[in-house]
Amino acid sequence: MVAKTRLVDSECPLTSTLGVVGEWWTVLILHDVFDGYTRFDQFLENLHISSSMLSARLRSLVDAGLLERRQYQTAPVRHEYVLTDLGRSIRPVLVAMAAWGNSRQAPENRSMILLDTETGLEVEPVVVDGRSGERLDDSTRFVFAAGDGASPEFRDRYARHVRA
Amino acid sequence: MVAKTRLVDSECPLTSTLGVVGEWWTVLILHDVFDGYTRFDQFLENLHISSSMLSARLRSLVDAGLLERRQYQTAPVRHEYVLTDLGRSIRPVLVAMAAWGNSRQAPENRSMILLDTETGLEVEPVVVDGRSGERLDDSTRFVFAAGDGASPEFRDRYARHVRA
Repeated sequence: MVAKTRLVDSECPLTSTLGVVGEWWTVLILHDVFDGYTRFDQFLENLHISSSMLSARLRSLVDAGLLERRQYQTAPVRHEYVLTDLGRSIRPVLVAMAAWGNSRQAPENRSMILLDTETGLEVEPVVVDGRSGERLDDSTRFVFAAGDGASPEFRDRYARHVRA
Repeated sequence: MVAKTRLVDSECPLTSTLGVVGEWWTVLILHDVFDGYTRFDQFLENLHISSSMLSARLRSLVDAGLLERRQYQTAPVRHEYVLTDLGRSIRPVLVAMAAWGNSRQAPENRSMILLDTETGLEVEPVVVDGRSGERLDDSTRFVFAAGDGASPEFRDRYARHVRA
């Protein structure tokens, strides 16, 4: 999917993430990989996706540096797809997405949860400030603002928020 | 965008979230709303999107219950779009998405950050377990698993993880 974004959008960190999670199949493939699946035929079976679409999506994940295509067998030659460090780093986004989906379901109706295998309890994923541990729900206190790398256009947008 | 997902996917909380954030423009409109914009012409100017696409995306956000269309003027009649409680509840997903985009940029190159207006410092959004406050980075300990509402198919997928 090619999105018509202008310059001011392309510098937005949301847009760069949408390049990955803005594509439905890509997220579902990543979910499979996080669940331990690595092979083309496994993705095919789990996702009921066409071979050509799956190939294209896997290629985009390799090109984006989230997956590595690795040979695991020589006769016949077979490849598997494994997470890179960058790929692993996107899991919190999927966790936050799943948490929002689950927040709309009563606990007893949830099909997929995040489980703490040490305690056997369902995890309640929340987004906090790593520095203070405070939840970021207060949208008056925690606001998007222009960073040091912002273009003049982006800086204008956020002119009302002044950083220390 | 209609995605070809089978039953086992449609019960997945990721899929229900993708119904919203899997659409590029929808996320950028929500970002605008979180930044305080409420009017059609503001979205049009900020996003450089076509009127018909913007109308369709706003309608889908209203239909999904994330935005409310509210009349704010009678002559001429004008409407604005404001967040519902459900709409506000999805902000952590956008925060996590922006944080992942930013994690790939040096701090001085970031265009948009999350700012703590009380301290004037950039927030470092991390996803933790609300119960214990522990970061969920350890993908061996914190795993996706079947919930109580899982179908037999979904339960099979996660048979290896047993809940307490």
